[in-house]
Amino acid sequence: MSIMEADLHTLKINDPFLGKYQQLVRDVVIPYQWDALNDRVTEAEPSHAITNFRIAAGLEKGEFYGMVFQDSDVAKWLEAVAWSLCQKPDAELEKTADEVIELVAAAQCEDGYLNTYFTVKAPEARWTNLAECHELYCAGHMIEAGVAYFQGTGKRRLLEVVCKLADHIDTVFGPGVNQLHGYPGHPEIELALMRLYDVTQKPRYLALVKYFIEERGAQPHFYDIEYEKRGKTSHWNTYGPAWMVKDKAYSQAHQPLAEQQTAIGHAVRFVYLMAGMAHLARLSHDEGKRQDCLRLWNNMAQRQLYITGGIGSQSSGEAFSSDYDLPNDTVYAESCASIGLMMFARRMLEMEADSQYADVMERALYNTVLGGMALDGKHFFYVNPLEVHPKTLSFNHIYDHVKPVRQRWFGCACCPPNIARVLTSLGHYIYTVREDALFINLYVGNDVAIPVGDRKLQLRISGNYPWHEQVKIDITSPVPVTHTLALRLPDWCANPEIALNGEVITGEVTRGYLYLTRRWQEGDAITLTLPMPVRRLYGNPQVRQQAGKVALQRGPLVYCLEEADNGANLHNLSLPEESTFRVFEGKGIFAHKMLIQAEGIGCHTTDSDALWQYDRSPVQRQPQTLTFIPWFSWANRGEGEMRIWVDEA
Amino acid sequence: MSIMEADLHTLKINDPFLGKYQQLVRDVVIPYQWDALNDRVTEAEPSHAITNFRIAAGLEKGEFYGMVFQDSDVAKWLEAVAWSLCQKPDAELEKTADEVIELVAAAQCEDGYLNTYFTVKAPEARWTNLAECHELYCAGHMIEAGVAYFQGTGKRRLLEVVCKLADHIDTVFGPGVNQLHGYPGHPEIELALMRLYDVTQKPRYLALVKYFIEERGAQPHFYDIEYEKRGKTSHWNTYGPAWMVKDKAYSQAHQPLAEQQTAIGHAVRFVYLMAGMAHLARLSHDEGKRQDCLRLWNNMAQRQLYITGGIGSQSSGEAFSSDYDLPNDTVYAESCASIGLMMFARRMLEMEADSQYADVMERALYNTVLGGMALDGKHFFYVNPLEVHPKTLSFNHIYDHVKPVRQRWFGCACCPPNIARVLTSLGHYIYTVREDALFINLYVGNDVAIPVGDRKLQLRISGNYPWHEQVKIDITSPVPVTHTLALRLPDWCANPEIALNGEVITGEVTRGYLYLTRRWQEGDAITLTLPMPVRRLYGNPQVRQQAGKVALQRGPLVYCLEEADNGANLHNLSLPEESTFRVFEGKGIFAHKMLIQAEGIGCHTTDSDALWQYDRSPVQRQPQTLTFIPWFSWANRGEGEMRIWVDEA
Repeated sequence: MSIMEADLHTLKINDPFLGKYQQLVRDVVIPYQWDALNDRVTEAEPSHAITNFRIAAGLEKGEFYGMVFQDSDVAKWLEAVAWSLCQKPDAELEKTADEVIELVAAAQCEDGYLNTYFTVKAPEARWTNLAECHELYCAGHMIEAGVAYFQGTGKRRLLEVVCKLADHIDTVFGPGVNQLHGYPGHPEIELALMRLYDVTQKPRYLALVKYFIEERGAQPHFYDIEYEKRGKTSHWNTYGPAWMVKDKAYSQAHQPLAEQQTAIGHAVRFVYLMAGMAHLARLSHDEGKRQDCLRLWNNMAQRQLYITGGIGSQSSGEAFSSDYDLPNDTVYAESCASIGLMMFARRMLEMEADSQYADVMERALYNTVLGGMALDGKHFFYVNPLEVHPKTLSFNHIYDHVKPVRQRWFGCACCPPNIARVLTSLGHYIYTVREDALFINLYVGNDVAIPVGDRKLQLRISGNYPWHEQVKIDITSPVPVTHTLALRLPDWCANPEIALNGEVITGEVTRGYLYLTRRWQEGDAITLTLPMPVRRLYGNPQVRQQAGKVALQRGPLVYCLEEADNGANLHNLSLPEESTFRVFEGKGIFAHKMLIQAEGIGCHTTDSDALWQYDRSPVQRQPQTLTFIPWFSWANRGEGEMRIWVDEA
Repeated sequence: MSIMEADLHTLKINDPFLGKYQQLVRDVVIPYQWDALNDRVTEAEPSHAITNFRIAAGLEKGEFYGMVFQDSDVAKWLEAVAWSLCQKPDAELEKTADEVIELVAAAQCEDGYLNTYFTVKAPEARWTNLAECHELYCAGHMIEAGVAYFQGTGKRRLLEVVCKLADHIDTVFGPGVNQLHGYPGHPEIELALMRLYDVTQKPRYLALVKYFIEERGAQPHFYDIEYEKRGKTSHWNTYGPAWMVKDKAYSQAHQPLAEQQTAIGHAVRFVYLMAGMAHLARLSHDEGKRQDCLRLWNNMAQRQLYITGGIGSQSSGEAFSSDYDLPNDTVYAESCASIGLMMFARRMLEMEADSQYADVMERALYNTVLGGMALDGKHFFYVNPLEVHPKTLSFNHIYDHVKPVRQRWFGCACCPPNIARVLTSLGHYIYTVREDALFINLYVGNDVAIPVGDRKLQLRISGNYPWHEQVKIDITSPVPVTHTLALRLPDWCANPEIALNGEVITGEVTRGYLYLTRRWQEGDAITLTLPMPVRRLYGNPQVRQQAGKVALQRGPLVYCLEEADNGANLHNLSLPEESTFRVFEGKGIFAHKMLIQAEGIGCHTTDSDALWQYDRSPVQRQPQTLTFIPWFSWANRGEGEMRIWVDEA
């Protein structure tokens, strides 16, 4: 089954909600990040990323500064620019990006090697520390940028640079006696090489991904071999010497993937790896790898996923925990992990036309990914808790990773540019463009033209998702096209209604998609009504952090209580089982957003100073109206308590 | 007001419950710990503590091994032996202890200095790192041992050693130009020197405590001065270089005690310091220090104390968190901290005849302190959580400090010998022996003879506390004595009833004590009836970890659910507000212990694999009998879930 990636030039997002986010990325995030990469944002931690490239290129004297993966910020910025240029040409921005690309090219070594940390700081140490040093990770991001820039602008300069880089890597790694039998400590290059393969069709890239994935976890272990070889030096010391080498599950390298049963270790590494693996499994028709993907997806989605689309239950190792361990306040749920989850879900969708993957993708997008960025586009969350009690954060060190409000930039700045690139490339997630059907996964408003044979199926999605129930799909093809449209029926919607040209229809529904095959012509209109009553969510009985609690969701949006609306001590509020909900449009920062109110139970508390009381609770229940806001928009009004899971009275 | 310490020779504990614990300490703990100190317990981590003394004494060649405070284990063992010998002479044990004391004396330097770590490993570094290196802490423990051994056996040998040590310290520290203006990073010597003052009445010891306490937190800061002076070396690196120097609140040295408003930092340090300070405040009639004690006690007891008598909400720094932050599962609640809390409470009681201190002391004793040791006397908890979910512990690193079952011994073995010494010296906590009255704080069964003028008031407390409601106090003095008895009326008892010689009486009750003044004579009998209905405890509304939850207490004992009785997933169980309780005697390890059953709510759960479900909880409630056991006895039946705070349905 051949699958095409939607061409973002012929896919224009005009969604009243996410369109604004794309505009924010264009107008604020990309310029702001450009300033940050050039150390012109005084209140943020220094980046030095561009300077590193200048030094590597011999254009400037100086020392490398930053994380060992600092290069990837430049790559992600370039990728975001590439996708942004598809949406809206911008000659000046493109010129800046072209200059950056020249700089990157100038920093590339003769043999194709490209990494400013090692080129500037330790050229002799190239490829000696795969477990810890992110060389292949940075390469992966640059490859993604090269592919994106080619797709976005048609310019081959960066694509050539990254092909040279990938070719070099392909000579260094492999089964040959003079090759390294290694693979990245931080997966990323797998998914990137698959994209490069899509664009170039060079089999060596696909073969290299296959090598990296199949070698992973083999014994004797590559991490140990290289560790001995380099004299047992270690780059990271966070949890003791060489912990990243020793804790092989941290990077999903403790055993071969075919033997792994659970989502484990660093959450971003896991989803990046799986995205590449699912892409490979599909293109190489590898049933074993397909089963590995399904098994590991299922463990993650059925036992380790938050309702916010967050993954990674713990700060230590930014990692998964164990089945059903989903703490709300000490959770990590890195923004990047949910972005990676969208990538993994997208690849699963391309492998299997099953809406469960789109459901998770949508959940991650509309909750954690959007929530990762402030409404001003200048502040970001790295960690996305489901419950925050700000007064405690600076005292109890189990919360050291949690910030009560979004920050401007980070020393380890992986999340902000990642949010930028995923929001600018949203079009790739909206559709799965298959030969046999056009799958509509997300109801983001857009105009698109999809090649079907030698014709084009053109359509427009409109509405005001995820706020309003009506989604309209207008066929705008000037020439009729026979094709199948597969519309995702979201898991959160109990009674979707579909009308074609005004008449309610029932079609074939398979694995969450409604299939409509027809000779589509201009004027055809599908109206999808997705009733959005407020729905109560209840946790799996195994999840102790949700026992006795309820969460609210409307459409794909998870809601929360904030102190700004409901006062402090949110833990004393509860929502009776029988309460009804009022949905209304908010004001100020909540304009065009739907809020929820419900009659809940608050409390009078006695003024007793005692830590406990016998026989009778000091909490006297009384009615209190509870106001819930969409969780992604929390912490836009300063510091305060927040919680998603509320006691059900 | 002169206060005398009860002489343990004339105080024989014959309590059916705690007497067994004393016997366990004598028969099992002391011999076991002696083996441990001599590295004869193969399954435990090595101690090397005795060997260190032999090396320091020049009796053996070798290197120091163990923690910088390893000496204190020997001191605590000697102290436990001393108190144990009061209860029950044991010539062989005393001989062993005498030999240890000779060894300690041999390890003492000419000038009085005594510390095997520095003597063996770094004699030139003496007193160069007060912030981190526990020299005064170890001295304090040895001083306590010297006092105890003198009191227990009448032998002066160790007392002389520690006087020489204390005199040496008194020359090193003080306001003189050639003296160090320092104080211990780990308080302990303050309370020890107060004990030494009690025994010797030498004013210099009291003055030295005053100096240590008043110098604490002064600027420029002593920790910084010595840090610079020794070339910025650091002994501990747990949370980064010199963290113990920098994080001055960790050792309550961030500001003068007179300015400190909250219980902060390492919990054991805090209570040890406060025990010494309260003792000093009383004996020096220092109203300022008395107010400091009251203020800091109140913050601790009213905002940072667990119902188990545990303190220290977090693992990081084994420390307090902030007001009302009392997590049940990530809590530290070190056994030693509750022992120190008993000491602090005892000193507060001696300062103020207010039963609130005895209430806390009792709570700590019957819950965390007893719980710190297994029923076999050979396994110990360092950390005492109020909720455990064993399956998660090895995956989520916020639980790295939590063990689901008690361990045999620890590399940092402060807790086991501390439990031994507090249990053997229980008599000191039962009574406050004042000139004006004999205060009975704890209803532990015992025979005692207390000097009153030139006579002796002899009495016997019997009953089966804390299991049975009746406590009997029989006067056994052959000669009548006029005196006041002050009986504590426990906070957990709503309707205590007191009968004197069979007639119910009402006496004067002041601050939780009932005062009975009379010419007491043999045959007089007080019967105290302390009704012990099961009581529900409700948390302060500020404590989010207890919201909507209830805990059970009977007498001073807090109860809990264990998986062994109630199945897994304890978080799905709830206790309706109207449930009644059945109290009954248990079997097996619960023989002679009272258990509680109540009709609660359990659940059927659907087999759905989904992590959440819309609209309707997958938990179907159904009646289930809940069995609660005394919390101190949890984890004596292998690994399983446990929780104290239960949802109230």
